[in-house]
Amino acid sequence: MNVLVVGTGLIGTSIAMALRERAHTVWLADSNVAHLRRAEELCRAPAHRGERPDVTVVAVPPGSTAEVVAEHLSEDGARTVTDTASVKGSVIHALESARDLPSDSRIERYVGGHPLAGRERGGPHRSRADLFAGRAWVLTPTQHTSSESLDAARAIVSECGATPVVMTPEEHDHALAITSHLPQLMASALAAQLADQPDALLEVVGQGLRDMTRIAAADPELWADIAQGNAAELSRAVDALLSTLREVSRALGKGGGRDAVRALVEAGRTGHERLPGKHGGAPRSYRIVGVIVPDRPGQLARLFGDIADAGVNVEDVRVEHAPGLPMGVIEVFVGPESADTLRAALTERGWKLAETDGQS
Amino acid sequence: MNVLVVGTGLIGTSIAMALRERAHTVWLADSNVAHLRRAEELCRAPAHRGERPDVTVVAVPPGSTAEVVAEHLSEDGARTVTDTASVKGSVIHALESARDLPSDSRIERYVGGHPLAGRERGGPHRSRADLFAGRAWVLTPTQHTSSESLDAARAIVSECGATPVVMTPEEHDHALAITSHLPQLMASALAAQLADQPDALLEVVGQGLRDMTRIAAADPELWADIAQGNAAELSRAVDALLSTLREVSRALGKGGGRDAVRALVEAGRTGHERLPGKHGGAPRSYRIVGVIVPDRPGQLARLFGDIADAGVNVEDVRVEHAPGLPMGVIEVFVGPESADTLRAALTERGWKLAETDGQS
Repeated sequence: MNVLVVGTGLIGTSIAMALRERAHTVWLADSNVAHLRRAEELCRAPAHRGERPDVTVVAVPPGSTAEVVAEHLSEDGARTVTDTASVKGSVIHALESARDLPSDSRIERYVGGHPLAGRERGGPHRSRADLFAGRAWVLTPTQHTSSESLDAARAIVSECGATPVVMTPEEHDHALAITSHLPQLMASALAAQLADQPDALLEVVGQGLRDMTRIAAADPELWADIAQGNAAELSRAVDALLSTLREVSRALGKGGGRDAVRALVEAGRTGHERLPGKHGGAPRSYRIVGVIVPDRPGQLARLFGDIADAGVNVEDVRVEHAPGLPMGVIEVFVGPESADTLRAALTERGWKLAETDGQS
Repeated sequence: MNVLVVGTGLIGTSIAMALRERAHTVWLADSNVAHLRRAEELCRAPAHRGERPDVTVVAVPPGSTAEVVAEHLSEDGARTVTDTASVKGSVIHALESARDLPSDSRIERYVGGHPLAGRERGGPHRSRADLFAGRAWVLTPTQHTSSESLDAARAIVSECGATPVVMTPEEHDHALAITSHLPQLMASALAAQLADQPDALLEVVGQGLRDMTRIAAADPELWADIAQGNAAELSRAVDALLSTLREVSRALGKGGGRDAVRALVEAGRTGHERLPGKHGGAPRSYRIVGVIVPDRPGQLARLFGDIADAGVNVEDVRVEHAPGLPMGVIEVFVGPESADTLRAALTERGWKLAETDGQS
């Protein structure tokens, strides 16, 4: 394929790199000349000088995406134009209501796209050809999209090593509101509450709160853009959550809340069970073997060497740090059939096992 | 010390085990005779037959704690009575308003306690002598508590390998509302939203939502008890969060919200920076080196062996699974000074590095 990549930030440059690795012809465009030069070097791909591409990939910030897509649809350019913005409905809406509305023959060449590469920080210097390896990449064709253009967009996704997931723009925006945008607001709100708490409170912070605020380190400007672009869906998602929590808070405020909290935690368990397990498959049960690991170089190597010698496959690993002590607990997730073997093997080799929640 | 442990669930039995390991005399009591027998075996400690202990540790469910503590204060028993309930104000309140109010000389013998052993699942068979190793254990003396009793409670904490953290009961309940009880309700509410979503939505779930709903697998009955016991503080914490989110939702509902979201995410960053880093120390910056690890036994051993050979100390480890592909990305957290060394060493040994957020 001959591909024009417009926008040479992290996503655009990574796409260009991935396509170059697969020996496609790639041209680059960016209004920021310094970025463009950097990307030309990184990707070993030239700047675009008017050649006609098969596919144009628009990888500019969400707020500018519709405008740049419209521009490339209006020109007598690529037979397929796709983009990478993390909001989709607002791009389509802007395209359809644009003054210089592309004719039907033009809008059928557009396929919305969103690679779920899960980044908190950007910049072309972080670009990598394998940024999308194994990730989901949503494509959002509309009723106008031609099957030829959908196929071309699928080819881009596959050549970048990602898995295409086809949804309508509305399904995408709803799904991302629930799975990404709402969690971001919750994480930020939870973390924000810590700002004016007494120091002593920080001493009792456990792994639960840490996990729940990890993404609170995110970029305010990017999230302002994303939230604005998915405002209606996100507002609905926030309101649904608020209404659940308001009921619980009212019951608690009356000095009760036992039933409301029990029902909420039960509903949470039901929802939690729907989360896909490892490698996107069905959820499965693991046993967790906790191991106390001294804070010295080489201890993890020794631990995982001993685990491999025991013939046990590790499904997941989690590290829990012990406040105030120079050691941590490594939680090793294994299949239920391997837990006893592993416990015995590690104990025999002198590891101290720690109590854990036991299963997951 | 001679210690009476009342309640032989996970916490009580683990305390008894820890104290037995340090050669203290331990007696056990439980109204459930089967549990008691089991604990006698596990701890190699006898049932209590009226001997006078130095310290009585009440480790029964939060809802029964005040009653059992009052009973042991009323008897001419131990010079110190402490407990392990995860709520503290309601226990004190119940003790003070009890009909068979202990005289001042009795209540001075009580010290509230709460080991932060972070369990989602209980049962005596999960008990371990090192359950509390390196954990914080809050003690909540009041103005009535004698220094002798506080010292005795501190000794119990230390002998169990935990770190005592002294707070007032009010400080404890406020801190736990923010750091534990509120996050639990949020995790449950977020997970509950997944229950009635279309299957396709689950395909775009990323690590952020996974992290934020991990604790949603918790026990509804236990949390009903905890929330009820800390209803006022928890209600306040929920309301503060609701009011923050309501503002954002209103702005989003009007089709805007850019400024509100930017401000929220910025406030979240400020709060997030207060979280203690590894080993409870000040937060520090890490670099994250992402490594693509094939899903075969022994790969983690090889990886951590290569890391150790490079002389690099691992600060933390996180596993990110790639949906649909039989491999995962291991994120290795290292000090900023080690990142380049590690990247070079791993690349040289044939590891494929994955793009990550780069720093934390």
